Amino acid sequence: MSGFGVTPIGRVESSLTDPASAPKQGHEGAPDAWLVLEPSVLDALDGIRPGARLIVLTWFHRARRDLLRVHPRDDPANPMQGVFNTRSADRPNPIGLHEVEVLAVQGERVQVRPLEAIDGTPIVDVKPAL
Amino acid sequence: MSGFGVTPIGRVESSLTDPASAPKQGHEGAPDAWLVLEPSVLDALDGIRPGARLIVLTWFHRARRDLLRVHPRDDPANPMQGVFNTRSADRPNPIGLHEVEVLAVQGERVQVRPLEAIDGTPIVDVKPAL
Repeated sequence: MSGFGVTPIGRVESSLTDPASAPKQGHEGAPDAWLVLEPSVLDALDGIRPGARLIVLTWFHRARRDLLRVHPRDDPANPMQGVFNTRSADRPNPIGLHEVEVLAVQGERVQVRPLEAIDGTPIVDVKPAL
Repeated sequence: MSGFGVTPIGRVESSLTDPASAPKQGHEGAPDAWLVLEPSVLDALDGIRPGARLIVLTWFHRARRDLLRVHPRDDPANPMQGVFNTRSADRPNPIGLHEVEVLAVQGERVQVRPLEAIDGTPIVDVKPAL
């Protein structure tokens, strides 16, 4: 099958810099962070206000795309599972999903919480949580 | 920013063939459908069983990627909104999110419900719902 091209629409700005020590899920103690969007997509934020719940899609640019089975949560004590049955960053298309609350909107900068993605992670989409 | 390449991991097999008449969300009367995965990613399904709740990520291959504001639900009576504040298929990276329940697993074929994606829609990821 032929593929598709994903263009980052922005980057995560966060105090988290080390993937190994970052929380694995947002609700596990992840900090506030900023979505810093490209000025060219500013109009796409129209209507997003503090208090909104969003789903942020990121691209795990450091992930391995050739792994189909992993130990969940990187713990060898957990039996191997197919990556589609885990939230591992390692997967054929390493897209991350993060449900967050909007704290502030300042132009193309959106403050959210909680977000476990590390600083510099590319953002590929933002949607309202349903 | 440079981009990334997404490779479809399978396709949707569905009785829905017309995007114009398909439900806009799964809970709006969408039918059962099959995820037909590539044999090469079969191992990644390991552990997925009937009754599981999954999030399926698709690629809206017919979407427009140049629209930043739309009338929600294609209704001109709705004021224009930024696409990041809507679930419109038209968006810079046209990735769809669908929460479904697994009905059956037969090799690389996974029956799910409800799914509003039309027949032939590329699938780019599958994750457990949290």
